[in-house]
This record gives sequence, structure tokens and C-alpha cells, in this order.
Amino acid sequence: MQESPLGAEIFTGGSEQSIGDSVVLGILTVSDRASAGTYEDVSGPAIIDFFDQALDSKWTAHYLCVPDERAEIERALLALCDEIKCSVVVTTGGTGPAKRDITPEATLAVGERIMEGFGEQMRAISLRYTPTAILSRQVGVTRGNSLIFNLPGRPKAIRETIDEIWRAVPYCVDLLEGPYIECKPEVCEAFRPKNAIRQTG
Amino acid sequence: MQESPLGAEIFTGGSEQSIGDSVVLGILTVSDRASAGTYEDVSGPAIIDFFDQALDSKWTAHYLCVPDERAEIERALLALCDEIKCSVVVTTGGTGPAKRDITPEATLAVGERIMEGFGEQMRAISLRYTPTAILSRQVGVTRGNSLIFNLPGRPKAIRETIDEIWRAVPYCVDLLEGPYIECKPEVCEAFRPKNAIRQTG
Amino acid sequence: MQESPLGAEIFTGGSEQSIGDSVVLGILTVSDRASAGTYEDVSGPAIIDFFDQALDSKWTAHYLCVPDERAEIERALLALCDEIKCSVVVTTGGTGPAKRDITPEATLAVGERIMEGFGEQMRAISLRYTPTAILSRQVGVTRGNSLIFNLPGRPKAIRETIDEIWRAVPYCVDLLEGPYIECKPEVCEAFRPKNAIRQTG
Repeated sequence: MQESPLGAEIFTGGSEQSIGDSVVLGILTVSDRASAGTYEDVSGPAIIDFFDQALDSKWTAHYLCVPDERAEIERALLALCDEIKCSVVVTTGGTGPAKRDITPEATLAVGERIMEGFGEQMRAISLRYTPTAILSRQVGVTRGNSLIFNLPGRPKAIRETIDEIWRAVPYCVDLLEGPYIECKPEVCEAFRPKNAIRQTG
Repeated sequence: MQESPLGAEIFTGGSEQSIGDSVVLGILTVSDRASAGTYEDVSGPAIIDFFDQALDSKWTAHYLCVPDERAEIERALLALCDEIKCSVVVTTGGTGPAKRDITPEATLAVGERIMEGFGEQMRAISLRYTPTAILSRQVGVTRGNSLIFNLPGRPKAIRETIDEIWRAVPYCVDLLEGPYIECKPEVCEAFRPKNAIRQTG
Repeated sequence: MQESPLGAEIFTGGSEQSIGDSVVLGILTVSDRASAGTYEDVSGPAIIDFFDQALDSKWTAHYLCVPDERAEIERALLALCDEIKCSVVVTTGGTGPAKRDITPEATLAVGERIMEGFGEQMRAISLRYTPTAILSRQVGVTRGNSLIFNLPGRPKAIRETIDEIWRAVPYCVDLLEGPYIECKPEVCEAFRPKNAIRQTG
């Protein structure tokens, strides 16, 4: 069992035979109730399930849970990006219009570049299922070599979104000079331009 | 006949039997010509028609008309939100790229949080009808417990947009700790998650 | 052969018989390799081909190529808008998430108003062809009487986008008090509200 310098829980998976590189990922659940322990987080585990099913590259995920406090969210994102060197950090929770919802503000504060397409496309996907998807303030940003984006709060909405959005993530990480992430095409058909596809022996 | 502290025109409607709470709404027409009286505003009345047809909750709407002047728009929005305590304020007019169009800037200036999904989805709806929908700079924001969003200028485009967008508004107002808005499902099928639906006796 | 005050290459086209006004356009290719001459720019020419096929108005296009350097991009955009008085400036290249990609930042820096619909709709169009379209950070802005927007980098993606987006451009230029741009309807069916359509003899 590995230890995370952050005191995060660590999960691992992927295949030794993958032609991809191994990748370090971050998962941040933002929830007052889950972080207080009055309620068991089901959203973080839904993301880990996705990694388990979709990634062929060997992966290590650092999982943290914080309350809806801007300073704590920012601190966690900074640690996951700058200390743990996560190539991708996904958050869940805190993206609605309610007073305590502050995840997008924290994400934008640590982000260097906004990736408008992530928020737009995640809302467009969720709109197929529910008209209130327009209330989500989800954003995507880059910070150094890391990509950060906000997923919805509920496991069902997480999977509706990440299953589709993740198709663009491996190539994004290539462009951010990170590891070559290989996915299992039967779960997630990642897209790269032809000249960016790694050839097997 | 009620009097508005703003000197606004007041309209009312809704059903005494509604299981919803009563709600206070704001309508702001932004138009040099309509505010000068050289032209009769048809956009504000189109919005009132929508409220009349779609809302089951008892409602009171404060209606104002101002020229395309940023300071006047901001003053009106602030009064509707902070003094009249409108749960929802909708504007019409002034969202194009022309020099005098300044409604989005005024809306962003008084807004505390941007609701990106409103602008995105309103443009996506209008694009089904006209390719120039991409020229609209409509935005949605929250300010305290109020939701503000910019509708298109023409009555036809207003109804194409509000009929669909309003499905998310009652739940948004719930999350902003406002009254429970009940709609007439045959006109506007508002969506709430199951655990947010008020049960009748 | 005309000379450009910028040292830009000049291309011309359109019909003497057009009922439209003549229009001045700018094309800016942003590419380290193309500006260093290690690689021939194919993106700028793809845009010129589009103008040649789609515009009925007489047109003059000033074409420049600069490296992915923010200051050089901004200088070129300012010259095309403020000195050459281009009604529309389109850029190609430099809109991804990679470190050197800086075109959107330069565009936003010279822009006075953001036209959110351009970025949204260009990404939505490209998404029909490739899932990595969400990685594009393309924006549209206005500066004075000029419209500026960022096209994708590859000729195929340029044409997928501009063929559709341009339908809104002539009316946008009308609203920015520029020349009346007439298109060839068999290539690009530009849209204007009825009362904005110029009548022939």
C-alpha cells in the first residue's frame, strides 16, 4: 500500500501490458456532509470505478474529500497539481448556484487557462437527461501540466459526463506534455490525431 | 391596484389554489425607443403573457423600461433585486454587438456569480431558428437570492427561449432559498429532483 | 498589385456586379513553423479559398503570418483592425491547450467585447467531427467596428467551421456599422432579418 504525502487515500489499477505510460490522477470530493462523515461519499468511488473500467495505462489516484470551503478546495487542488503532480484532477460537488457551492470559483482561482469547452460540453451532455443542467457552473482549466475539471455531484450524472468527456483527455494530457494515457477502447474510445497515436512494437 | 416603490407597472396573476408559494418577479425592457415612447414595447408584454400562461403560483411582476444606458440598467436591476426582492429578473433587449447594446455588461456588473449555462443554452435554442443567434451576448447571473437573465429582444424569440429555459428556473430559485414556484405543467414542465418536489395534502 | 501598409500579402476577389459594398478583411496565421518558413502555411490559403468561393462583394484581404508570441499576435491584430480598418479579422492556429498556444489570450487582450457565441458554436460544430474539439479555446470579440474570431488550425476544420459561422458575419458587420457584405447564396447562405436586407434596383 502506497502512502500519499497528502494523507489522501490511494487507489491503483491498469495493466502491466499497456503500451501507455503510467499516470497519476487526483479525485477531489467537495461536500460538507461527506467530509464531516455524516454521509458516505458515493461520488468519489464512482470516479474510481470509471478509472478502473476505462484505463489501460497503469494509474494511481489520490483521493481527497473536503468541505465546501473555498480555501480548502484551493489548497487541495494546489497540492494535487503541484506536489503530487497529477496529470488530471477531477472534482465532484459544489457546482450549483446555492450559497455554499464554491467549487468553480476555487477551480478558476488555481487555473491558469480556462478550457471553456469542458463546461459547455458537460452541460450539453447533462441537458440530454435533465433541464436543470443549465444550473451547473462546471469549469475546466489547466495549471502547468495538469488538467482540472469539475464533474457533477451525483454518480449517475458523473458517469453520463465523464464517459464522453474523457475521450478528449488523453490527447489534452499529451499537449500538456504529460504521460501517454491509454484507454480500453470498449469502454472509452479516446481520440488522438493519427500522428499522435503511439505505435506498438 | 398595488403600487411599486420603483414607480414600476405592476401585473399579477396565478391561482389561489396553487400548492406553490407566491413569487415576486421583475421585467426590464431595455430600449432607447421604447423608453422614449417613440415605439410601444411589445417585449415586456410578451414576458407577462408567458408568466400568465405558465405560472400556477400567485405572482406579482414589476415592469420597468429604461434606455440602453449602462447606469440606468444597473440601477433598475439593483432596485428590482435588492429593494423589491425579486426572485427572478428577466431583461429584454440590448444584447447584440451594436455600440448601444450594453445589457450584458450591466448584468455582469451587478451579478455575483455567472450562470454560464443560461447564455449557452439560450443561444443554442435560438440557433435552431436563426444562424445569427451566435451574435447574442445574453448572460445569466445570480445576485443574493435573485436570478437575473437576459432574454432576446423580439417577442417570438423571447417565447422560443423562455418556454424552454424556465423549466430550470423554479429549482434554481429553490437553491437560492426563494419561494417554491409552481408552474402549469401543460405550458411549462418545470423540473425538480424527486426529493425537492413539494407534496400536496 | 496593391501594397499593404503592413507588408502583408494582399488578395482580392468578388464581383463588380455585386449589390454589396466592398469589404476589407484580415487573415492572421499564427504558427512558429510557418512564420519561420520551415513549413508552408496551408491554413491562410484555405481561408482565402473560402473568401473566393463565398463572397460576392468585392473584397481585399490582408494576410499576415506571425509566430506564437503574444506580443506579435496582438500587434498584428491591432494593425489589421485600427490601421487597415478590416471589418473582419480571422486567425488560424494557436488555440489549443499547449504551452505555446496563446492566440485566444492575444485576441481577448485586444477585444473590447466578447462574443461568446462564436467560441461555443465553433466548438459545437467541430465536435460533430472529433471529440477533442472541446480542447479548443477559440474566442470571438469585437474591437471598434471590427469582428475578430479564431478559426481552427487545420484546413479541413477551418472549412467545417467557417462555412457555417460566416452565415452570421455579414449581419454582425452591419450591426458594427461596416460595409454590406453580400455572399454567394449557393456557397454561404448569410442571414439577415428582413428589414436589414438590401433591395436591388
